[in-house]
Amino acid sequence: MCGIVGYIGNQQAAPILLDGLSKLEYRGYDSSGIAVYNGNEIDMVKSKGRLKVLNELTHDGATLPGTLGIGHTRWATHGSPSDINAHPHFNKDKSIVVVHNGIIENYLKLKKKLENHGYEFVSETDTEVIAHLLDYYYHGNPLQAVTKIMHRMEGSYALGIIFQDHPGELYAVRKDSPLIVGHTDGGSILASDVPAVLKYTRDVFFIENEEIVRMREDSMEFFNVDEEPIEKQATRIEWDVNAAEKSGYEHFMLKEMYEQPKAITDTFSPRIKEGKIVIEELGMADEEILKIQKIQIVACGSASHTGYTSKYIFEGLARIPVEVDVASEFRYRDPILDENTLVIVISQSGETADTLAALRESKEKGARVLGIVNVVGSSIAREADNVMYTWAGPEIAVATTKAYSAQLIALYLLAMKFAHVKGMLDEAGLAGMLEDLKAIPAQVEMLLNNKVNIQKFANRYLAARDVFFIGRGIDHAISMEGSLKLKEISYIHSEAYAAGELKHGTISLVEDGTLVASVLTQKDLYKKMISNMEEVRTRGAFVMAVTTEGNTEVERAADYVIYIPETNKYFTNSLAIIPLQLFAYYIAVGRGCDVDKPRNLAKSVTVE
Amino acid sequence: MCGIVGYIGNQQAAPILLDGLSKLEYRGYDSSGIAVYNGNEIDMVKSKGRLKVLNELTHDGATLPGTLGIGHTRWATHGSPSDINAHPHFNKDKSIVVVHNGIIENYLKLKKKLENHGYEFVSETDTEVIAHLLDYYYHGNPLQAVTKIMHRMEGSYALGIIFQDHPGELYAVRKDSPLIVGHTDGGSILASDVPAVLKYTRDVFFIENEEIVRMREDSMEFFNVDEEPIEKQATRIEWDVNAAEKSGYEHFMLKEMYEQPKAITDTFSPRIKEGKIVIEELGMADEEILKIQKIQIVACGSASHTGYTSKYIFEGLARIPVEVDVASEFRYRDPILDENTLVIVISQSGETADTLAALRESKEKGARVLGIVNVVGSSIAREADNVMYTWAGPEIAVATTKAYSAQLIALYLLAMKFAHVKGMLDEAGLAGMLEDLKAIPAQVEMLLNNKVNIQKFANRYLAARDVFFIGRGIDHAISMEGSLKLKEISYIHSEAYAAGELKHGTISLVEDGTLVASVLTQKDLYKKMISNMEEVRTRGAFVMAVTTEGNTEVERAADYVIYIPETNKYFTNSLAIIPLQLFAYYIAVGRGCDVDKPRNLAKSVTVE
Repeated sequence: MCGIVGYIGNQQAAPILLDGLSKLEYRGYDSSGIAVYNGNEIDMVKSKGRLKVLNELTHDGATLPGTLGIGHTRWATHGSPSDINAHPHFNKDKSIVVVHNGIIENYLKLKKKLENHGYEFVSETDTEVIAHLLDYYYHGNPLQAVTKIMHRMEGSYALGIIFQDHPGELYAVRKDSPLIVGHTDGGSILASDVPAVLKYTRDVFFIENEEIVRMREDSMEFFNVDEEPIEKQATRIEWDVNAAEKSGYEHFMLKEMYEQPKAITDTFSPRIKEGKIVIEELGMADEEILKIQKIQIVACGSASHTGYTSKYIFEGLARIPVEVDVASEFRYRDPILDENTLVIVISQSGETADTLAALRESKEKGARVLGIVNVVGSSIAREADNVMYTWAGPEIAVATTKAYSAQLIALYLLAMKFAHVKGMLDEAGLAGMLEDLKAIPAQVEMLLNNKVNIQKFANRYLAARDVFFIGRGIDHAISMEGSLKLKEISYIHSEAYAAGELKHGTISLVEDGTLVASVLTQKDLYKKMISNMEEVRTRGAFVMAVTTEGNTEVERAADYVIYIPETNKYFTNSLAIIPLQLFAYYIAVGRGCDVDKPRNLAKSVTVE
Repeated sequence: MCGIVGYIGNQQAAPILLDGLSKLEYRGYDSSGIAVYNGNEIDMVKSKGRLKVLNELTHDGATLPGTLGIGHTRWATHGSPSDINAHPHFNKDKSIVVVHNGIIENYLKLKKKLENHGYEFVSETDTEVIAHLLDYYYHGNPLQAVTKIMHRMEGSYALGIIFQDHPGELYAVRKDSPLIVGHTDGGSILASDVPAVLKYTRDVFFIENEEIVRMREDSMEFFNVDEEPIEKQATRIEWDVNAAEKSGYEHFMLKEMYEQPKAITDTFSPRIKEGKIVIEELGMADEEILKIQKIQIVACGSASHTGYTSKYIFEGLARIPVEVDVASEFRYRDPILDENTLVIVISQSGETADTLAALRESKEKGARVLGIVNVVGSSIAREADNVMYTWAGPEIAVATTKAYSAQLIALYLLAMKFAHVKGMLDEAGLAGMLEDLKAIPAQVEMLLNNKVNIQKFANRYLAARDVFFIGRGIDHAISMEGSLKLKEISYIHSEAYAAGELKHGTISLVEDGTLVASVLTQKDLYKKMISNMEEVRTRGAFVMAVTTEGNTEVERAADYVIYIPETNKYFTNSLAIIPLQLFAYYIAVGRGCDVDKPRNLAKSVTVE
């Protein structure tokens, strides 16, 4: 989620590092820093705010001499945006310095262990643990220290590391976070992303999981976790800078759709420990969870659709009544809340004005507020009683995809946790659900890889004027999101309808050729849904269906069927939304719309 | 709500009565009957079911000789559809017989008084009271007896009356229910509606409130309530039979819109007694009302919109949390209900399949169910624990107008009642609200009379492809109904949006010339709404506004403004919906749509 760079060579490092960071900055980071070996010791400058602050502090790098350095732009995860929490991070005697992209899931445990050994921590980050851990295991052999910490760390990381007593070397390693390295004219460069290196080389090495790189001015060696040398081939990058920002995808939206498996994994993985759901940041003891009489969910746009989905899960699994409101309505209807109501506000940016106001209104009325947000240190994160982060990373496209998917996961975890505490979900049930949850990222990836078929289908409907999305129960909530995606980026008037409600009015709009997208992932509602599909089909509609593998019966009522893999009935939204995202995306692309920045819309709505 | 006919002349009465009734039957009555003086006594035949049953029973009238008679088709109000409750109704010695259209509001009081005088009642109707009351006051002078009962009856009525000992006379009188009379070739005929008489005459006398008619074979005399003769002019009817069924309106929908003041009055008037709201049929003691922890409203289509409106009122006035579900969704989400939940199901027909199933589901879960329905004796009326009728009369047009308006009134009454019982609405507050409530019928009539302006405006938008309705709070609920009306009958894709939520996606659909209908009746939200209107207007939308008189500030953000009179903030739906109904109607008429029977839709949805 952060951006890292590193350089070793015959040029001054700092300007190269700053330039590299500037290529990553389009994502809107919150702090940055660089560390350079000056021939004697390691100098470090870091600061909260945009990169230009760092440029000013270092006179565009001029004040930092030296040809070996690392740099970082931060998207806060552990610890809010601040000077102290910015990277790089030192060990205690400042002889080792590290930058990190990723999340160390067992950092609290490691921190405790290190504190027992006398290490003192200055920041709230998980990254500082890495610096001290390297210190702990370092006895003169950098490669050995790196492999040692690899065995101890759980989670994801891409690291750039300097050991002061090995000033001719720059180390890098990664697991589940991207890392690339390449040769420059007279040096070597590393980065978390292609745009940062394009100015210097188009031949890059993509580092694979648990591979280590030792970079020197004139050489580069690769090792596995057993410290054995490995061979790697460079890849020629043909992208221009614009494409590089999107990792070669045509649009940020598509790139972010492809980041969904990671966003999902990153959101659940740190919260599943030894088969239990542990949500420390919830800050609620079991007794407090048992006291919840009602959950009030407040959000806007897509985030509210995750709320509608979770209503079925909280009510179905935990039997806690849930009310969902869009924030602009919630504030003005004088809602009935009390101290037994848990208010959950959901926002990608954490700055959504209506949602923030709803949060304040709820606190004033005495309710406890849990924020589910994607941006650490944002207003909602700061003002909520507790905050549960989605780890989707920065989202650039206005139409949300990966943040939406991460929000769903956060809500699944909460609902399962509550149900478990209430004794309504036993160990076996929980274990089964967690298995299904862990399977989702690979299933999402599989669905994404079906994009060509959906593109072909979408191309037939570029001229559609009106599209209806129908579903029942959770499938209705999925339909709402599918419809909104299409609306937002393709400007086609689409509308989501509870399938059984169509006949009470809206069905009069269905005529020859009207596209009706049907979602049916709930086994007990298949038959009812098929009836509704037949209702519209007899009136001339072209019926597209998203359903679960095996439900071939749907084919008699549908003209085009997309199958999603089997999963727990409460998790189907995470899979069914993928083809609907792709459908909206390819319709918009085909119509020549500005997919990443649709007209009239802003990414983060900070006005009411 | 019922249909009445009467004949005196030189022809056999029964076939004429049956023919007249057949002209009224398009409304779908539930029972019928005729009574004819046979020269000796009064013969009566009546039966539950459609008119053809009566035709069969009487061999198309052949079995009933005599030239003086009255007939009735019933739309049940007091007492379910049955042979016994069908009209006509006799006095005890069968010397006086009466048919009645309307509701006698004080019938229980009158019934008690008559029972104290030894009268015995065989039916559950309010009409039987009239027969016995006539008996009580009749001492040989029919006219005197009629004026006597007029002084005693409260409510609405159109009556046809035969006194056996005045076999050359047929009496009729009316108040707040329609009644017409006319000469035929060799006789006189009376009816509640023009279609029943068109075959015999095109010159009819419209009887005004509290006017009495004495009809003879060859003459007709009119009297006021003081028994003084009055002069009346006949009106020439130019309508054909089709138009006559619609009282001269082009469509049933327009006719029914014009019946809204009466539907509203008929729904509240019997439930306001001496400044108190008395809803006997609710069957709940104050202690039971105090126990209600939650109200769950379940309905489909327009009826669900009255539910959304009432949520604001129940929560705002009585602080009882309300959840609203469309019935097809409610059933399948395994809702959390208990004995402290009051479930309110709303349905015009009382036969809506999804709503009926929701009722059964709720009862199974132990909740108490109150039905709000328009058809006495319908399935929902029979199966609900209690039923509160809307007195809108039969609705023919598929798109509901008057039943919707009557449902709103029933919900207002309930919310006020609950708030009063809970001590949250004091006497003065209640009195003020009742004053506002009583003013609504005249205000609705005024708004209906503005139809020409709305027609003109609608004609400019006949080619609209997409229309958005926006509002906040109650105004959002109004928007939902305004949008559905337009959708149903004009086939224009319109959608209602919470105004503050537009910017989270749907605003991307707004382009040059998009029509956005804004509803702003809530003073504290004027400013927010005006901001939202400006948001869409800057993006090219043409903004129509429905707002309250005096809110002239709206004109700076709107291109076309319709003002509604001031009323209580909870009652604004009843007024604001009128111009939206008219707008939808005239758009549909202008587009040449089949207004009364839109494609794909049925009046009463008896399938799931």
